[in-house]
Amino acid sequence: MQTFYSASAIETMEQRFRTNLINSLSGFKSLNLIATRDLRQNTNLAIFNSVIHLGANPALMAFVVRPDSVERHTLENILETGYFTINHIHQAIIKQAHQTAARYPKDVSEFTATGLTPELKNNFYAPYVKESILQIGLQFKERVDIVTNGTSIIVGQIEQLYLPTHIIATDGFVNLEEAGTVTGIGLDSYHATKQITRLTYAKPDKALQELVTTYLHERE
Amino acid sequence: MQTFYSASAIETMEQRFRTNLINSLSGFKSLNLIATRDLRQNTNLAIFNSVIHLGANPALMAFVVRPDSVERHTLENILETGYFTINHIHQAIIKQAHQTAARYPKDVSEFTATGLTPELKNNFYAPYVKESILQIGLQFKERVDIVTNGTSIIVGQIEQLYLPTHIIATDGFVNLEEAGTVTGIGLDSYHATKQITRLTYAKPDKALQELVTTYLHERE
Repeated sequence: MQTFYSASAIETMEQRFRTNLINSLSGFKSLNLIATRDLRQNTNLAIFNSVIHLGANPALMAFVVRPDSVERHTLENILETGYFTINHIHQAIIKQAHQTAARYPKDVSEFTATGLTPELKNNFYAPYVKESILQIGLQFKERVDIVTNGTSIIVGQIEQLYLPTHIIATDGFVNLEEAGTVTGIGLDSYHATKQITRLTYAKPDKALQELVTTYLHERE
Repeated sequence: MQTFYSASAIETMEQRFRTNLINSLSGFKSLNLIATRDLRQNTNLAIFNSVIHLGANPALMAFVVRPDSVERHTLENILETGYFTINHIHQAIIKQAHQTAARYPKDVSEFTATGLTPELKNNFYAPYVKESILQIGLQFKERVDIVTNGTSIIVGQIEQLYLPTHIIATDGFVNLEEAGTVTGIGLDSYHATKQITRLTYAKPDKALQELVTTYLHERE
């Protein structure tokens, strides 16, 4: 059985029902912890499910912020200092990552509140999440505002990247599943993954093949 | 063992290696087919891994286009007609979905080339993908350009939504895993999912609980 919702059905839904429903529709989401540090050395940590790839050269990533929400501390710190980190979430830190979404006062660091560990290294101003298996340090490049609903897209360029050696393939592919990175639906559902296939580059009139992944280094 | 890449290491990577690496870093990606129809009734279909949720009220979704790429036909048709559809990808149509990324001439419809079926219904100008289990019809709202690398973010508002009744929870959550929606890494890796948990809304000083999902209707 199929359900159809029109624009007016969506408009008149109970608010919490609509929030959950519409948040589920884009498909599986990336789940990342974004960490920042303001000029008075206060750290901030928040979970985001909107991080996307924007381009490889220059190496750019982007995410959505709602300036009137708990996410505003992340935005303020990025605009103040120019730096932030993106840190992957794996099964062992799901609860701590989810808890960073609570509305703590600005003088309470979500690192302290959740027990995750800020890691300052390599002269990078923003802290990394020590527990994360894949860590990315970015420099703020651009903010674009979406007029339709007052959200903003924040664009950063990759300055530093730390990841487990054994998940890097010879062709550059990174096996996030092997690292235990999780994915999500909506605002609160966490999922592990199971690879189905990798496929060769698509060309007209050429049949797709399964791609066999080889790695730069064996797992130790 | 951990690998560190600096900004200059990323800049000097072999191009294909960098493309695969950087494309893998955002985490698991949504995978969707975006379908359009131009004013001469030609249909177009392309796979996108950048669709994100932008807001629930109004119900907005967004995705990234590279105007100099194969994706430009999608962009041209959206700007010409104002409508597009977002269609989920499940295991049975992975190969066909991947093949839509091939550079077909504009007069060849990727529907015809891949064997997927355009479905016109409910007076919506853009076609749906008949094989997709979850289909969303959107009206174009806004295009914002990213100066840093010349990409654009396309924003649409949901006008129509079709989904299986049995995956809609009483709180509005949509169980995409139950529908078979797949997720991806990078440009070519396809993954099924296995739910780990749903968690209650995070509040300071309140312990998180597992959330039990109940559904509006039993599966038939």
